[in-house]
Formats: sequence, C-alpha cells, structure tokens
Amino acid sequence: MAYHIEFEPVGRRGECPPGETLMDCARQLGVSIVSICGGVGKCQGCKVQVLKGTVSEPTSAETELFSTRQLNESWHLACQTYPKSDCTLYMPPESMTTSQRLQVEGQGISVVLKPAVKAYRVKLPEPTLSDLRSDATRLLDALEKQRRVRSASVDIAVLRDISPNLRLWDWQASVSVREHEIIAVNPPGSRQLGLAVDLGTTKIAGYLVDLKKGDTLAAKGVMNPQVGYGEDIISRIYNAIKSPKASAQLRRLAVSTIQQLAADLCKKAKTKVPEIVDVVIVGNTAMHHLLLGLPVKQMAQPPFLAAIQKALNIKLRDLGLHFAPGAYGHILPNIAGFVGADFVATLLATGALRAKGLTVAMDIGTNTEVALISNGTLTSVSCASGPAFEGGHISHGMRAASGAIERLRISDSAVEYQTIDEAPPVGICGSGIIDAVAQLYLAGVLDEGGRMRREHPRVRVNNNQPEFVLTQEHEERPPITITQHDIREVQLAKAAIRTGIQVLLDTANRSEDEIEQVIIAGAFGTYIDISSAITIGMIPALPLERFHQVGNAAGQGAKQALLSLGKREEAQVIADQVSYIELAAAANFTGTFAQAHYLGKYRIKNGRRERITGEGLGL
Amino acid sequence: MAYHIEFEPVGRRGECPPGETLMDCARQLGVSIVSICGGVGKCQGCKVQVLKGTVSEPTSAETELFSTRQLNESWHLACQTYPKSDCTLYMPPESMTTSQRLQVEGQGISVVLKPAVKAYRVKLPEPTLSDLRSDATRLLDALEKQRRVRSASVDIAVLRDISPNLRLWDWQASVSVREHEIIAVNPPGSRQLGLAVDLGTTKIAGYLVDLKKGDTLAAKGVMNPQVGYGEDIISRIYNAIKSPKASAQLRRLAVSTIQQLAADLCKKAKTKVPEIVDVVIVGNTAMHHLLLGLPVKQMAQPPFLAAIQKALNIKLRDLGLHFAPGAYGHILPNIAGFVGADFVATLLATGALRAKGLTVAMDIGTNTEVALISNGTLTSVSCASGPAFEGGHISHGMRAASGAIERLRISDSAVEYQTIDEAPPVGICGSGIIDAVAQLYLAGVLDEGGRMRREHPRVRVNNNQPEFVLTQEHEERPPITITQHDIREVQLAKAAIRTGIQVLLDTANRSEDEIEQVIIAGAFGTYIDISSAITIGMIPALPLERFHQVGNAAGQGAKQALLSLGKREEAQVIADQVSYIELAAAANFTGTFAQAHYLGKYRIKNGRRERITGEGLGL
Repeated sequence: MAYHIEFEPVGRRGECPPGETLMDCARQLGVSIVSICGGVGKCQGCKVQVLKGTVSEPTSAETELFSTRQLNESWHLACQTYPKSDCTLYMPPESMTTSQRLQVEGQGISVVLKPAVKAYRVKLPEPTLSDLRSDATRLLDALEKQRRVRSASVDIAVLRDISPNLRLWDWQASVSVREHEIIAVNPPGSRQLGLAVDLGTTKIAGYLVDLKKGDTLAAKGVMNPQVGYGEDIISRIYNAIKSPKASAQLRRLAVSTIQQLAADLCKKAKTKVPEIVDVVIVGNTAMHHLLLGLPVKQMAQPPFLAAIQKALNIKLRDLGLHFAPGAYGHILPNIAGFVGADFVATLLATGALRAKGLTVAMDIGTNTEVALISNGTLTSVSCASGPAFEGGHISHGMRAASGAIERLRISDSAVEYQTIDEAPPVGICGSGIIDAVAQLYLAGVLDEGGRMRREHPRVRVNNNQPEFVLTQEHEERPPITITQHDIREVQLAKAAIRTGIQVLLDTANRSEDEIEQVIIAGAFGTYIDISSAITIGMIPALPLERFHQVGNAAGQGAKQALLSLGKREEAQVIADQVSYIELAAAANFTGTFAQAHYLGKYRIKNGRRERITGEGLGL
Repeated sequence: MAYHIEFEPVGRRGECPPGETLMDCARQLGVSIVSICGGVGKCQGCKVQVLKGTVSEPTSAETELFSTRQLNESWHLACQTYPKSDCTLYMPPESMTTSQRLQVEGQGISVVLKPAVKAYRVKLPEPTLSDLRSDATRLLDALEKQRRVRSASVDIAVLRDISPNLRLWDWQASVSVREHEIIAVNPPGSRQLGLAVDLGTTKIAGYLVDLKKGDTLAAKGVMNPQVGYGEDIISRIYNAIKSPKASAQLRRLAVSTIQQLAADLCKKAKTKVPEIVDVVIVGNTAMHHLLLGLPVKQMAQPPFLAAIQKALNIKLRDLGLHFAPGAYGHILPNIAGFVGADFVATLLATGALRAKGLTVAMDIGTNTEVALISNGTLTSVSCASGPAFEGGHISHGMRAASGAIERLRISDSAVEYQTIDEAPPVGICGSGIIDAVAQLYLAGVLDEGGRMRREHPRVRVNNNQPEFVLTQEHEERPPITITQHDIREVQLAKAAIRTGIQVLLDTANRSEDEIEQVIIAGAFGTYIDISSAITIGMIPALPLERFHQVGNAAGQGAKQALLSLGKREEAQVIADQVSYIELAAAANFTGTFAQAHYLGKYRIKNGRRERITGEGLGL
C-alpha cells in the first residue's frame, strides 16, 4: 500500500510508501527540497504545509522549531513527517532549491483573455475579369463580410507578402488584426502567439504564450550580454553616455538576445517566429531606454528623469525586432528614472493596487524598488542596493549557480550549508550571504554595528582584516570565507533597502508594525530566507506570514499584459497613480540611512519576534 | 511712352514701346513663346488672348487663321499684334515653349488649408525635484495645457531626440502633431513643410510646400533613374519579377531620388529636410508598387490586379525615406493595376468628379489613362500607348530636350519647325512627331491608312522603306527623317488612346459629339497641338474650346492632397467610385482597335471642323 502525495505549486505527484518521510517522497518524485542540516530536523529548510490529508504527529524537533500558530496551520518538516493518508502539500518558495524555483517560474496565470491581437480565418473569392478588386481590398472585404471585422489598414510589411501568399494558400488565410490594422496574414490554421519579455539587468526572461488559450508554451531565461558594459545599470548608463557606439552596441545586444530568445522558445514549442503577433516588454527604466534607443543622459543627472513614462506601442521593426511582419511591441509604462516598467509589472501581477491594509511591495536587485500602498494610494522609492546580493563586491560571492552556497546555518562552531545542485561549494550567492551575516550575528561573531569579533575559532586575519572561514580547504579548493569588508558591503546594501521602506513609512506617517503585508518579488527576493533578512535588519521584524515571496512577478505581469488589454490599462493606472519620492531628497534621509546600517534588533524564533541579545558568541 | 504688358499665367510683366509687337515684348521680358513660321503670321504658334486692354486690329493673317468666334474672344497672333494700351494677355500652354511650360508648372493652387500635420509652439516648465515628470509627459502636458491639444503618443524616433533637444532649446519647441501623434519636435520657430511627389515613369517631380501658408517654395523635376531597368513600366515590372535584386534596386533608385530631390528643394528654399513633416506621393500603380516594395507579379498576369487600391499612410522610414523623424507619407489610392494614384490625383486636381456635362479626362504617356465622367459617374480604362510620344521606337525620336523639334509645319514642299531652346535640330519629340504625321497627312504624303506615298520630292527610300526628310544634312549633322515605320508606331499609339475613348463611349452608350469637355493632363499632353492630334485621329474632332490642356495635374493633385485632408478624402471617393474596364476584355475591342488605326476624317480650320479630302498632295 502507498499514499498518493501531491506537491504544490510545483504540481508534481506520485506514490509514497508508508515507511518513508515526505522528504524521501519528494526526492523520489524529483522535487528538489532544501535540506541544510541533512534531514535531522535541525533547520527549517524543508518546511511544508499540509493542505489535505493526515500525517504523523509533530516530533520534538518540529515543536521546538515551529510556533503554536504554525503547528496549528499544519506546518511540518518534511524530513520528520510520515504521511498517514493521501496528502496535498504546499511547498513555500523558501523550501525550494534554486533550480526547483526556476522551474516553477513561468507557470500559467489566470486572467480574462482579451489579447490586443485577434485572428480570423477567411476564405477569399478568387479574382475574375468582372471582379478586379485589389488583393488588399479583397481581403478587407472578406474580413468584413465573413467575420464582421472592419479593418482600416494593412501594415506595409504585410502588404509586401499577401499577393503571392494568398495565391499560394489557395485564397485562404488566418488574418491577425490589432486595433483595425492587419498586422499579419499567416497560413490558415496558424497559431496566434505572444511573447512576454522581462528585460532584467542580469537576466532576460522570455515566455511564449498561446494568445487564444492563455497557456505558456515555453519559458526561458538567459544572461543579459550587456554585462560586458557593466554589471549594474549605472555603469551601463555611463558607458552609453560616454560613447554613442557603446549606446548602439548596448541596444543591439538587447535586441539580438530577445530575437534569439524568441527563436529558442519557438523551437522548444515547435512553432515559428512569424506566428508571434504580439510582444510585451518590461524592464527597469535604464534597460527600457537602452533597448528603445532613448537617451539616458538625463537619467544620470538630478532630478534623474525618464525620457518617457507612458506605455508605448511601437512597431517591433522600429526596434530592430522581427516577428509577425506588422507586429507591435507594447512596452509597459515607467514610474521614474529608477522605477521602471518591470516594477509596474510586479505591482500589476501582485494586485498591489487592490491590496487591503498597509502593504509594502519590493523588487530586490542591484537597484531595489519599494512601494508603499495604502488604500489604493501608491508611493515609491528607488534604493541603490548595489550588487552584493548578486554576489558582487563580495570576496567569495557568486551568482546563484551550481556550487553556490544558497543556505547556511551556524550551530556551535559548526557551519552547515546547502549548495545549488548539491555540488561541491565554490562560492556563496545572495541568499547564502544574508544567511551567513544573520548567523554570524546570532552567533555573536558580529556585533550590532557589524564589527567582526576575532575570538571565534573560525575567525582568522587575512590581509589585515578579520574573516570568518565558512568551508575549510578541501581537495585543493581554497577555503570560502566572509570578510569584514563583505559584511560592510551587505550592510550598505541592506541599509539602502531599509532606508527606502522607512522613508516611505515616515512620509505616510505610518509605523512598521502597521504593515499588514510585504510582497517580495524578483528572483533574488524569492530565494532569501525571510528570518535571516529580518535578523540583519534588512526588512521590518514582522510575523513571517505577512511576507509573500512571489518570484519573478515582473515576468508574470508582462504575461498578464500580453493576454489582457484590461491589464495594460491597469498597468497605466498604476504608473499614473504612483507618486515617486527621490530618496536622496527626502527630509530625514541621512539620519535614516546611518541608522539603517545597524544589524537587526529582532529575530524570529518559533514564529515569534524575539529581541537579539548579542550574547550568543559561540566560543 | 511705353505700355505695361502682363503675361499670364506666367506672371511676367514689363514695358513695351508702342512700335514693338507683343512677340518682341515677350522676348524682351524673357517669356519664351512658340514661333514656327518665324513671326510672319503663317502659323498659330504664338497665339495669345487679350484679357485686358486694347491692341491693333487683326491683320489678314489673323482673320485667315482664326475663326470669327476666336476673333470675338480676342485671340491674336503675338507676332502680328501691337499694344495700344496697357494689356494683360493670356498665353495658352500650346503657345509656350517646353522650357517656358516647365517654369509654369508647380504654381500656387487654392484649396482650403487643412493639412494633416499641425504645429504648435510650446514652452515647458523646467523639471525640479518636486516635478519629476518625464520629458515626454512634460511635453504632452504642456501641449494640452497651453494649446488644448491632447496627443496620445510620441513617435519612437522623436522620443530618441527630445530629451537633449528640449534642454538645448531652453525647454521651448515647435511640436508637429498628426492625428494625436507627435511626429516631430523642432526648434521653436521652425517651418512646417510638406513635399508632394509625382513619381512618373520618366520624370519625378517634387514640390516643396509651406503647410501653413499653402505656398510652393520650390519645385523641381528630375529624370527617373529606373529607366536603366526599362523605359516603360512593363519592362520594369518584368525585371522586378525576374529578380528580387532588380526589384530591390528599383525600389532603392526611387527612394534615393526622392530623398535627393527633397534635399535639393530644401537647399533651393533655404530650409532643412527635418522641417518636412508630411509627404504625399502619387504615381502609376507600377511605380507605386515598386516604390513601396509591393509585389508586381499579379499585375503582369490576367486579370492584372493591384496589391492594394486604398490610400496608404506609411511611416516614411518604413520606405527608407528620412524627413521629420516620425513623418508619414500619404500615398493616394490606385484605381486598378494600370490606372494609378497619379490619375486619381489628376482627376482630383481637375475637379473631374464635379464636371458638368459629358467629360473625358486623360493623362497621355507610355500608358494612357482615360476616364469618362457623366453626372458624377466615372469609368476608366488604361491604354498601352507605348513610348512613341516620348520619342521611343521612332528613328529620330527623342525626349523633349534642347534641340528637339517640338512644332512643325509643312507648306508646299517646305518644312518649317521650331526646336526647344531654339537650338540646332537634333531629333524630334512627341509634340513634333504628332505635328509631323498630321502635316504629312494634310499634305497628302500619307493616305488615310498611313501609307507613305513616294511621289513627294522629300520622300526617299532608305533600307527598303520610304522616309520623309524633315531637315537636310547640315554642318555634318545627318538629316532628320520620319520613316514609314515611325508612322506605324504613331498609329499604334494613337489607336490605343482612341480605342480607349471609344470603348468608354460605347459602354456608356454615348457618342463623341456629346463630349462637352476633354481634359488632357500630363507633360506630354500639354505640349501637343490639339489640331494635329485631331487630324491624325488620336482624339475626337471637337471644337478646340472643349479641350483643356492642364499640365502636370497629377503633381497639382498631390499638392492639393498635401494641403487638405478634405482633398485626401475626395481622392478616396474618386478611387472608390471609378469603375474600371479591362480594355482587352471589352466586347467590341478588336474591331474598334483596327478602326482606330486610320488617320482622322477631320481637321480643324479657322476653329471649324472640315473633312479631310486627302487631295493636298503638294507635288
């Protein structure tokens, strides 16, 4: 006998024999679950919520780690739990490994389908000596007569092909219409596809969507090749300002990557690029401007203005992109020079405008956008959080790739960690860095000002600065360490974010504890351990259930805008409603920023807020 | 004492001493007037109409050449007439030499100004830390607030420049708006110019127009460099079908010529190409399709269809043309595969749709379009008249250039002629060829079937065929002759046109004599002598006052469409209303075409129709 177990939102399901834990079951089903302590019930890495079914009683390890509320809500450690019936389990993002999460991204979303482009199949009467209408008139007439669609114009690029094509297809065709304009004429029976693009500073994600059904046919993320012109947007902006050649090259790189991404997605989905009749693109304002060939100089000087905020509908060929011949790209609106269309897409996907209660929404990256939403009023700031969370400026930092330490726990003087793909450790990525700083602080290795105490046996001095040894030298691999300088970088980064939140609260005359919901979007934000982020003082110490890690919400927002004209309007409403505060110009900026450098006052233990005493120095 | 003499429509004026003829006066003022007989009152070349003032009594030469009605209407021969007071004279197109007529073309026209693009001057508030609107939003807001113009979008190419430009121009600008779209942002005080282009098979004419005032600032005609791919459209179409490379090259040639023409016109008018914010292009369907990169294969096969008939509004950059960054080209509608936008423009400019009484409108060229208008109903045909009237396929034929015989008269056995620029004769152009055939026929050298009689002293046999010697060998120049073969070519050409007219009449169940008005447009049509064209049977033998030679009406129509949205609508109405008859498919085509080869039955003498007896053989 075996139980039927379902893991959500991954959607993986299968049988689990009664003698095996949920952790064993997950592994057998290929669901990749976090396990820092090695499955001995000492970390919360593998926590899951039982939505349906019965499981074994909580073990002592579970009652120690979870609060009463969490236990009441059926939270369990997968490594400690045996199913007692068929079960449906919820696996929160923080329990998924990086590779597992990447698979989850780009799942179907439900919006009312109302795409900008609609397709109509028509059969044209053949011309005769007594019916001398031109090919275009013949097509427009058939569309009106057979489908009651009155189109006013035919795109010039479409016109260039219809005469031979209509004859080739025996006077039948699938006609794609957008706002009274024929933007494509494809063979009868063609699919109507859309492409949603999240043009990130580091990664470019693409989603190929069936516009008629709303399904995602393929999704793919690739590195943004613009990194050659600077890892962060500021360096890219300066490069673009310095040289028109660099500016043109940055544009070309973005364009060719999107074009290639589309080709790859079409190959995956066994379809053809000309079947892509609509494209939605989101990105931060800098990426947006560089792709569109807009000037960025005014973004680099106070008051840091965007060239345009409004949503744009641009013939894709004007951007150098080639899909269906007359296809448009819809570019979501920007909010400000450093709060872009990607954040609008995030707010769109998370329904932020309709949020009940005081809500903070943020997308953490080298630039972190934060919005405070209160009764439909949105205020936003942009925080220069820098590259530390992507592994930049950190001695052993790296991106979230194979061998990166993504989770870390210090108990006594032992360091336990989990790497991506469970490969031998080669560095430490953003989520691991936050864990490391939090654990060092809780272990008393760091004081609240971030100074590293040299008394811990794993602290050594190298190049005149203390560093904590995370992994020992192993098979010719050098040890992986966290240096005092790394701690300072993390403090700068987290202070920027915390300042943003605080300035928004101060401006609205509200306090931290009033926040009812914190939405954390973006690839990095999804991977971090919220408790660790609270411990280092990056985010307010609120009950964990108030936090929602929503993954690549920008990409989801782009997809929604692709499938629904209503969502495009909503995005414009969001962008129009948001008031933007230039952080450096805020009244209390300097004091707030200085204060924000301190590590946190609280930790979350057993679901409860607990003051950090700094007495834990594990000597 | 001297009289003040004005020549219209040329607009040249000056003093004329009482002892000098109007011909002398014209010459002194630089007005180039036709004079075949050398000013001895033997030809009608220099006929003018006295609109105001008193002149000398008609001489016997004048009373002989003019009808009573013409005399009553104050027609005079300039060479025979002395002014007796200040005078205003009308010089009809046929009295102007070719070079004089080229100067007249592109004169001002009066339409109610309602251009598609309007300009607004705005002054923007400078951005501050508390006014963080993007540059585009700032511009759109200023336009709405200061000029009550609500624009929905900014062209992407305009967006690419506004941020630096607004700062450079101290936040002031002249904004060009077309249908809620900002298509150009120019320095404050910029002009709003439009370009009208008549893309002819042989010649490309451009007119640079001030859209605010309606003035023509400059006009220029250049040769169409596509002639390298065939003198007529049929050869060009076949070249384009045979090779995509040739097709691309034909397109590039048209594009680069228009671009260069615009640059030349701007230089002439001391302005800059980016001030051109609107362009209207007309051309026959083949030229239209080749310029737009549309397929032409279906035009070469029955039933000879256009890819598109409707008027098009296309971003000029999509055609490879570069004016104001977001400017559109408006391409007038076509009627059929061989009745194009240029003919629509002709019908527009001549007000054909509103013509009272049975009207024939025609544009004579290698392809001749003819329309019959009756009570607002338009029917059209296309006639393959071939290149004879442009000098093609004629032994000594040439285009209307310096040294071409443009007028010709045979009296007794003498040949009198006038050449363009009064240069030594080097060949014979279209109007000269028609004169020659008519004169040979009247002189009895040709019979009504077009056969050349060998009895005339100037007829010799060369290569086994008879030819008529127009000019003798002179200073090493070979003689200029008209061969039997040339006569056959002219017969073919004129038969095509006459057949077109006849088929239209037959279809409408009307007769020649009912025609109240014949509008002859096109460069060539303006140069021909109507009497000669009647004599050879090319056009019906109607009283001369029913004919109107209107010059390059296609160019005028393009200009009207440039200045007035109403005219664009009217053009579409014309194109939609015209019913087109495929000539070769007409019931009585073969018989009509065979009959049309005969030379005319009538000549016009002293304004009256007179049967040609064929007895005039000047032996």
